[in-house]
Amino acid sequence: MGEYYDALETRSSDERETQLFSKLSEQLAYAKNKSAAYAGILKSVNPEKVKSRSALAKLPVTRKSDLIDRQRKNPPFGGLAVASMRELVRVYASPGPIYEPEGKRNDYFRMARALAAAGFKRGELVHNTFSYHFTPAGFMLESGAQALGCAVFPAGVGQTELQVKAIADLKPQGYVGTPSFLKIILDKAKEDNVNVSSIKKALVSGEGLPPGLRDELKRDGVAVLQCYATADVGLIAYESPALEGMILDENIIVEIVKPGTGEPVEDGETGEVLVTTFNADYPLIRFATGDLSAVLAGASPCGRTNTRIKGWMGRADQTTKIRGMFVHPGQIVNVLTRHPEVNKARLVVARDGVNDAMILKCESEAGDSSLQAAITESIRAVCKLRGEVEFVGVGELPDDGKVIDDVRTY
Amino acid sequence: MGEYYDALETRSSDERETQLFSKLSEQLAYAKNKSAAYAGILKSVNPEKVKSRSALAKLPVTRKSDLIDRQRKNPPFGGLAVASMRELVRVYASPGPIYEPEGKRNDYFRMARALAAAGFKRGELVHNTFSYHFTPAGFMLESGAQALGCAVFPAGVGQTELQVKAIADLKPQGYVGTPSFLKIILDKAKEDNVNVSSIKKALVSGEGLPPGLRDELKRDGVAVLQCYATADVGLIAYESPALEGMILDENIIVEIVKPGTGEPVEDGETGEVLVTTFNADYPLIRFATGDLSAVLAGASPCGRTNTRIKGWMGRADQTTKIRGMFVHPGQIVNVLTRHPEVNKARLVVARDGVNDAMILKCESEAGDSSLQAAITESIRAVCKLRGEVEFVGVGELPDDGKVIDDVRTY
Repeated sequence: MGEYYDALETRSSDERETQLFSKLSEQLAYAKNKSAAYAGILKSVNPEKVKSRSALAKLPVTRKSDLIDRQRKNPPFGGLAVASMRELVRVYASPGPIYEPEGKRNDYFRMARALAAAGFKRGELVHNTFSYHFTPAGFMLESGAQALGCAVFPAGVGQTELQVKAIADLKPQGYVGTPSFLKIILDKAKEDNVNVSSIKKALVSGEGLPPGLRDELKRDGVAVLQCYATADVGLIAYESPALEGMILDENIIVEIVKPGTGEPVEDGETGEVLVTTFNADYPLIRFATGDLSAVLAGASPCGRTNTRIKGWMGRADQTTKIRGMFVHPGQIVNVLTRHPEVNKARLVVARDGVNDAMILKCESEAGDSSLQAAITESIRAVCKLRGEVEFVGVGELPDDGKVIDDVRTY
Repeated sequence: MGEYYDALETRSSDERETQLFSKLSEQLAYAKNKSAAYAGILKSVNPEKVKSRSALAKLPVTRKSDLIDRQRKNPPFGGLAVASMRELVRVYASPGPIYEPEGKRNDYFRMARALAAAGFKRGELVHNTFSYHFTPAGFMLESGAQALGCAVFPAGVGQTELQVKAIADLKPQGYVGTPSFLKIILDKAKEDNVNVSSIKKALVSGEGLPPGLRDELKRDGVAVLQCYATADVGLIAYESPALEGMILDENIIVEIVKPGTGEPVEDGETGEVLVTTFNADYPLIRFATGDLSAVLAGASPCGRTNTRIKGWMGRADQTTKIRGMFVHPGQIVNVLTRHPEVNKARLVVARDGVNDAMILKCESEAGDSSLQAAITESIRAVCKLRGEVEFVGVGELPDDGKVIDDVRTY
């Protein structure tokens, strides 16, 4: 069931909640005292009184979508960071640009836990194909692997033939990167008849993992688990070999709220992921990631006791209103899980005369009229709306993270 | 005169020589005991008896050009490395491929000294444009900068427009990378009217720095110093603001030998650079880099007392015989230093009937008949051979590191 990284993973829910919220007041006081931006944001908040989820839910939200503006007005970190340049090891730039600081703390992005669950062990070599340039992805996984006691081959992206050669020569036990690039590497190795079978496990992120691809990689001998992390807050949740949703990291507080608000949804409802960290260098409080997810009821059979979420279910800002009904990317993901024959899909919302027209474009090699009818029925069941289904070839939909593409003009 | 990194830089030559050679016996014994390959290479050597340069000169040479073969027979490090995978933080692949280990020691590649001489200081931000993928260049400079207490922006190569934007926003004090990419960044910033004037200093490597380019970068407000390092042994030598040759690193023993042999040349003569390190993870002894250089007589006016070399003077394996005379890349570099109007040059050796023909192709915007006559005279003076001179536009010669291109067929 994967190695537990520490005893925090199996503490009781009550114990976890008590421990997280006993640290929270201290962190809020720290942020209010040390961060110029939080001195303002938390001005009317008494940190000592914030000891529960309901009290936390009343605090202001810090939106990822506001970071560009905050950072432009107050460079480089919008006044949110506590650490000065001399306390940082690196500064990153994510698309926007949004700049992120990395402090000196070991495993700053807390990724070791996800790697341990995926079976990575001390003394192993990790083939890391995330980029180390500009964005922190490469360093996030690398620092986690090094904290676990693994050595890392910093492969970065591209150069497939050289990657295959390096894997054959160095015999890494594991891969980290996107699942699609792992597939490209394994296919290239087959084509060139090169033995890359040393890779038995992978921790992937950065894009969706269709169930079909996970099965295919498994057949090629690689057990693949996913994690969900962002450049701002680090690890948010990770899969365990139980493969039932994603388990929350132990050192953050996660809330799921109605997108665009700070108001928690009922457990199980889809909403925006808000994260509060205990990071001393960059203390983000109720940080609205812009990502959608939902709590998955129950506990993981792997023995980890923390709350599970359904993983990344799209971007909150893609939520749209069609014929008076809200449709959000999580619903499209929900439709998809009912039809494993579909690799990927994109809901295109257009105007048809005076009406809204909803077409779900589905990547599938198996698109026939019976599958079409079944998906149409799923759309009706999940979205309470009638939509059409159109099949396209695998790989034909753009790889831009859009699940809902609203092309209506008025 | 740049910050001294430590007191080692100003110790007397006698003291340095005594201290290095008192460590050497111990390092030889260590390598012989711990490294499978050196157990063989040093089989007939009594480490305790190696206490002088003349004794060291009798030891076998470990050739970089043999690493591919050694590593293929005994992966991954040819039996030379002492550290096992669990004692490494990273493994790299340089063209060949040649694999290099990085141990856990702070500033493993010893680059902090070169950065200090170039004026980098604690608390500053460094814009690092060396690649972090496959080869160690990015990490070599980064770990040096972090050892000095600098934060690093891991920019990598390419994406010039985003690099300019990141520099304007983050205001790094210094640049590390190739000099030509610094020029590209500064030109792009001018073109887009973006202020990148926070960058006042640069440490460059990886390619030659023509004097004209150094002057141009200086006029753009950036003081540029060079260093010479390899993926195998780390820092070998570095410039100080005195700008008189390159000063050897304090924690290695460098010898200049007749290429292809282990026999030291006279001081001042051009030969192959041999390096002995005190690295416990990868203890290379008399490592033949394949690079050419020469000792520069005298001491640096900056107060550093270590031996100076002329920097990288080409590859030893490009040495060729023309009309019975040896010509090596260092001689072409010597011709060039006499004519700053020439940006870069390449000696093409061809057959003209039964004779060898030598044409020096020179990149220059100022190529006229008087310059042509002057260069022809310099070739005669330095190489003791008659050669022709042909001008080409700046940027027209291939960027492949070749100084001598022997295209003769028989």
